[in-house]
Amino acid sequence: MSHNSFGHLFRVTSWGESHGPALGCVVDGVPPGIPLTEEMLQVWLDRRRPGQSRFTTQRQEPDKVRILSGVFPDEAGRQVTTGTPVSLMIENVDQRSKDYSEIRDKFRPGHADYTYLAKYGIRDYRGGGRSSARETAARVAAGGVARAVLGHYLPEARVRGALVQMGPHIVDRTRWDWAEVDRNPFFTPDPGSVATYTEFLDGVRKAGSSTGAVIELVASGIPAGLGAPVYGKLDAELAGALMSINAVKGVEIGAGFSAAALSGEANADEMRAGNDGPVFLSNAAGGILGGISSGQDIVARFAVKPTSSILSPRRTIDRHGRETEIVTKGRHDPCVGIRAVPVGEAMMACVLADALLRHFGQGGSLANLALSPVPDERTTP
Amino acid sequence: MSHNSFGHLFRVTSWGESHGPALGCVVDGVPPGIPLTEEMLQVWLDRRRPGQSRFTTQRQEPDKVRILSGVFPDEAGRQVTTGTPVSLMIENVDQRSKDYSEIRDKFRPGHADYTYLAKYGIRDYRGGGRSSARETAARVAAGGVARAVLGHYLPEARVRGALVQMGPHIVDRTRWDWAEVDRNPFFTPDPGSVATYTEFLDGVRKAGSSTGAVIELVASGIPAGLGAPVYGKLDAELAGALMSINAVKGVEIGAGFSAAALSGEANADEMRAGNDGPVFLSNAAGGILGGISSGQDIVARFAVKPTSSILSPRRTIDRHGRETEIVTKGRHDPCVGIRAVPVGEAMMACVLADALLRHFGQGGSLANLALSPVPDERTTP
Amino acid sequence: MSHNSFGHLFRVTSWGESHGPALGCVVDGVPPGIPLTEEMLQVWLDRRRPGQSRFTTQRQEPDKVRILSGVFPDEAGRQVTTGTPVSLMIENVDQRSKDYSEIRDKFRPGHADYTYLAKYGIRDYRGGGRSSARETAARVAAGGVARAVLGHYLPEARVRGALVQMGPHIVDRTRWDWAEVDRNPFFTPDPGSVATYTEFLDGVRKAGSSTGAVIELVASGIPAGLGAPVYGKLDAELAGALMSINAVKGVEIGAGFSAAALSGEANADEMRAGNDGPVFLSNAAGGILGGISSGQDIVARFAVKPTSSILSPRRTIDRHGRETEIVTKGRHDPCVGIRAVPVGEAMMACVLADALLRHFGQGGSLANLALSPVPDERTTP
Amino acid sequence: MSHNSFGHLFRVTSWGESHGPALGCVVDGVPPGIPLTEEMLQVWLDRRRPGQSRFTTQRQEPDKVRILSGVFPDEAGRQVTTGTPVSLMIENVDQRSKDYSEIRDKFRPGHADYTYLAKYGIRDYRGGGRSSARETAARVAAGGVARAVLGHYLPEARVRGALVQMGPHIVDRTRWDWAEVDRNPFFTPDPGSVATYTEFLDGVRKAGSSTGAVIELVASGIPAGLGAPVYGKLDAELAGALMSINAVKGVEIGAGFSAAALSGEANADEMRAGNDGPVFLSNAAGGILGGISSGQDIVARFAVKPTSSILSPRRTIDRHGRETEIVTKGRHDPCVGIRAVPVGEAMMACVLADALLRHFGQGGSLANLALSPVPDERTTP
Repeated sequence: MSHNSFGHLFRVTSWGESHGPALGCVVDGVPPGIPLTEEMLQVWLDRRRPGQSRFTTQRQEPDKVRILSGVFPDEAGRQVTTGTPVSLMIENVDQRSKDYSEIRDKFRPGHADYTYLAKYGIRDYRGGGRSSARETAARVAAGGVARAVLGHYLPEARVRGALVQMGPHIVDRTRWDWAEVDRNPFFTPDPGSVATYTEFLDGVRKAGSSTGAVIELVASGIPAGLGAPVYGKLDAELAGALMSINAVKGVEIGAGFSAAALSGEANADEMRAGNDGPVFLSNAAGGILGGISSGQDIVARFAVKPTSSILSPRRTIDRHGRETEIVTKGRHDPCVGIRAVPVGEAMMACVLADALLRHFGQGGSLANLALSPVPDERTTP
Repeated sequence: MSHNSFGHLFRVTSWGESHGPALGCVVDGVPPGIPLTEEMLQVWLDRRRPGQSRFTTQRQEPDKVRILSGVFPDEAGRQVTTGTPVSLMIENVDQRSKDYSEIRDKFRPGHADYTYLAKYGIRDYRGGGRSSARETAARVAAGGVARAVLGHYLPEARVRGALVQMGPHIVDRTRWDWAEVDRNPFFTPDPGSVATYTEFLDGVRKAGSSTGAVIELVASGIPAGLGAPVYGKLDAELAGALMSINAVKGVEIGAGFSAAALSGEANADEMRAGNDGPVFLSNAAGGILGGISSGQDIVARFAVKPTSSILSPRRTIDRHGRETEIVTKGRHDPCVGIRAVPVGEAMMACVLADALLRHFGQGGSLANLALSPVPDERTTP
Repeated sequence: MSHNSFGHLFRVTSWGESHGPALGCVVDGVPPGIPLTEEMLQVWLDRRRPGQSRFTTQRQEPDKVRILSGVFPDEAGRQVTTGTPVSLMIENVDQRSKDYSEIRDKFRPGHADYTYLAKYGIRDYRGGGRSSARETAARVAAGGVARAVLGHYLPEARVRGALVQMGPHIVDRTRWDWAEVDRNPFFTPDPGSVATYTEFLDGVRKAGSSTGAVIELVASGIPAGLGAPVYGKLDAELAGALMSINAVKGVEIGAGFSAAALSGEANADEMRAGNDGPVFLSNAAGGILGGISSGQDIVARFAVKPTSSILSPRRTIDRHGRETEIVTKGRHDPCVGIRAVPVGEAMMACVLADALLRHFGQGGSLANLALSPVPDERTTP
Repeated sequence: MSHNSFGHLFRVTSWGESHGPALGCVVDGVPPGIPLTEEMLQVWLDRRRPGQSRFTTQRQEPDKVRILSGVFPDEAGRQVTTGTPVSLMIENVDQRSKDYSEIRDKFRPGHADYTYLAKYGIRDYRGGGRSSARETAARVAAGGVARAVLGHYLPEARVRGALVQMGPHIVDRTRWDWAEVDRNPFFTPDPGSVATYTEFLDGVRKAGSSTGAVIELVASGIPAGLGAPVYGKLDAELAGALMSINAVKGVEIGAGFSAAALSGEANADEMRAGNDGPVFLSNAAGGILGGISSGQDIVARFAVKPTSSILSPRRTIDRHGRETEIVTKGRHDPCVGIRAVPVGEAMMACVLADALLRHFGQGGSLANLALSPVPDERTTP
């Protein structure tokens, strides 16, 4: 069951509400002997942390992560994982006291207020409770553990994300520069888009409105052979993981929806012999064939809707069925898609770490996961 | 683990290869007392069955499904489920003997040949083996069981699919007619598109090429309250299930990728009071908010790539790393997206049946799942 | 996967080491609307708490449990569950600083020192780390949540345990008095055994030795119909759950091992008609037939080995393979079986809560779970 | 969920009823490249097959197992696993037509008739339906696959079982001879017990009665490091797996229940340095410490109750609540414990194969699973 867990062998169980004392997660199945410190996780949380520019919510949360279990010094004195559950906790600090009477009884359109109440008959309405995007801090922390696992076995593996569309504005891929991603408050890889996004989002913000976005994730250095056929396909796992992020409405792999308009000739990535295994002449597949990684870059995109927390009055009803209006004040992200970049990266890292352990768990070894090999013989673990 | 299983309480485990003696699945967790006959399943398999028009593969498979366990006559003599595993089997009949030397050693671009070999060191290359779309027959059979479960508890529930794009040609939604879907060989809901698709696909077929498609699924009559927050979101489960179908490269819910370009005002579906609960003024959310159904129609779309089995020679390598070319002869669908319609419906039905049982499994009852209620009090099961 | 999780729908994931900052668990799948406070959990933790008599370890741990998520005041102002994960945390207070050089390098016979190192290549040796019985505090806390769930749906359900054997001394069942269990430091139900156990255990304690025990658990008020056939049998779930408790070496249901010597006539519990359903004339089955509860008392027993932490020098080796001796000083229970009573109760409560939710999850309702009914018609949830 | 599945990575899902057309199981997660033929499985099924002596049921079932998927010839022409699901099917042949009016409406004491009906409201009463011990044929087939997996990675591993008690008669362990087990119809390892058991069981059989038994399982050649702490303990998995076998009422590991009467000194197995790692001076632990294998023989025992299918009339009620009597005629085993020997072995083999794959799945390798090593450094897979 996975109400609040995901992953099979690299397994994350998260808990916590927006305005409770803390939130966190338990990461089970982490192999032993892998260096892991709070600093290694904090760097990723800092990327997601709110309040770092005027383009994200002004809620001030240090988002300091604590490791409560599962690590111990090794012989060399380095703090490493022990193979037992890694429990991570992040305290909520800025639970600003406010008047909840508006959202206690009224359903905010586009939010989960109504559906939680329909399902459970009760909901923690403070800041969205469990449906708040604050839960994604736990995902980012878990993603940090996943990166440590990936890095241990696959030193060349790298999981990166970038914003490729904000509202109607799409980046110019010819200007793509990964180094640019960390230089601007939008995680855009296109230096030429920064001014556009600044102006556009300032307009949105000042209007009390919001806008959507598309994020692209790229995992490089991932060898061929991760994933599984049928229901355990690597792309199926990615799709489920990314769609589980708050506000995500679409996921695609490689050519994605545009593949529908392609011919078979254009879509099938041809292969040539390379020095270290096959070389593909294109990557419409997004690095996954038959649910299994091909050794190419794994490319996924996901669409984030505009947050429904806006200043324009919207028609709604209250829990007693009475018609009313609502305005959502408070500290909100005008484009939640921005902070979705590190969250998406984290989910991809978790899926890949899980796929790697599952590969081991079916007798696969690192040796038969050499990057893009022409498979010949299979070695045992 | 879900290499070859999916679902949590309504749980399907499938097995079988394209050219083995049979394929099938075991459906565990089916509630007892639900009418279930082979005829009820066959009707769905017949929709997916190949060889019914010149636009699908000419492989002749009767796809007759047998129920091997889990049913028994009730007091009234009707065959019903007993609560024990329902084992379904479909024999492979038309495993035409052919020369496999081409695909035994060469990797077909766009197929899973290379990745299966990279992962497992061995593969059943006859007809694609486990990676063949024949596996989807098991999904459709399981989907029939899911429909029986849904129908038992939610008589108004309906899961339907239609092809909304083939190659570059998109249907005209103003002409949408569900009755049309079963009248043409493309499952298009737009009568005006039939001639276009016929001409287009005949061209593709005669050229030995292939084309992609987009399928839209709509579940109506689904009450508010199905799904779960965070990793068990109903949309996350749908995304994983649909992306696990062969050749699918993208999944979206409601407004999907177009939500990225919307404003918060345009995206948030306003609510009004109706006679039987809330009335939503739009459905950008696709019937799911915070991972939980809202009582609106649940709308999902998925993109199917063109099959890579084409007559144009493609550059590739063989398993020994030598460069070569390949032409994929044989009996293939020029647009695999067509037969993906019943498969997508089946997966959606399975996800919804699972979500319903999971709702029961957390103490939820049918009473608190009245269609689109204004939730008031929660009754116990 | 269940390295550190158990249960299917009532699902517990625990974390923490003996000498880390804290330990705890996340309980997922709890139905909403169930009253739950820290006080309701603390009462069970207090029963397990060390240092309450001279017969248990003198480590002083308040074992105060905190609920970090998953509860909220309902309309009536009562704190109830919300249906989201209940995170429980217990801080470790008395991590007395000591010299670990003895156990850091030497393997204590009968302990998990060697096997953890063999498996993981590293272990947290402080107080046994993850293998310490302190982990059972998390089980008892989870068991408190399980009792709340059971009590909500089955007000007559009761889960009780008693020590029925300590070392060679077996209680006299003719004197069984449940009220006695809470009056003595041994959880024995036999008033006549208290003096014997006091004298016996004082001798063991003063000798620096230890002794084993047998615990009996009885769940009453459990209706017929919980459990599932084959691998999900209620007795199989109980056996796995009880055997997972530290130091347990045997589990039996009803007549247990003595059933091997019975005739079929003596073993088959005959049935008569009662006012509220069947009356069984005996209970060799321990309340479970074919893996499903029969409405009788569910009776399980488990054997706890003597702790291996004793003052007598024992031969062993160190991690470098050198032969040596070891004496385990420190604060240990001379009979860990005593504090296993509340732990066993907690595990049984968790298994039963899970079985109840699983029953709902296959469409079963409370109505068709009336206590010991003669089943007639099945109602839907 | 595991209503009808067990195992985590080596995962078995079984289906089928006693008098349906067939029964079988799907084994998922099998590593690729492992030799597997029907003959390799049949040898184990033949050991369990009924009708081989006058001491087992006279139902004549060839129990021929078919492999329907998941195997393919490797380069050398050997049939090996492909890494995809292995589907196994056994047809029911001797479903002797009989009059079911007795058991259709009456509850056989000691059987699952009443509890299935209480749970499901319907049951397949022909020969016990799903609760029949015929389901164990699927376990034995799966166990054969598990043995193939174990043998592939651990050529010295061996899983054996023997009957050590029948009714009140316990074998003399000083005469234990594994070779004897296959020479007599009781699977007893004690040549001196054969005459006793023959006379005893002939008496039971002629009286139309039945008797219980205790089975001992021993796995040798299992390295240290399999298993996991807390809820995934190797002994917990074994206990659940063995208790899930029909008619089992107790499970113990190593010293088992007798550990309750031991002192800490007697129970803690001392360690000495050996040539290939530690040597233990005793095995009260049964080869498992802290839930992880120690490299010693893994020893488990389970108690099987006498079947309740006896010729003596027993008091019972019918489904309408009326009091009546029942005599269970038909073809039954006077001591079902005998045929439980190969079933128990199969379950142990499955648990061990699963534990091995789980070890791989947490980054463990064969190298750090050398038999009884003094762990030094951990190698990666």
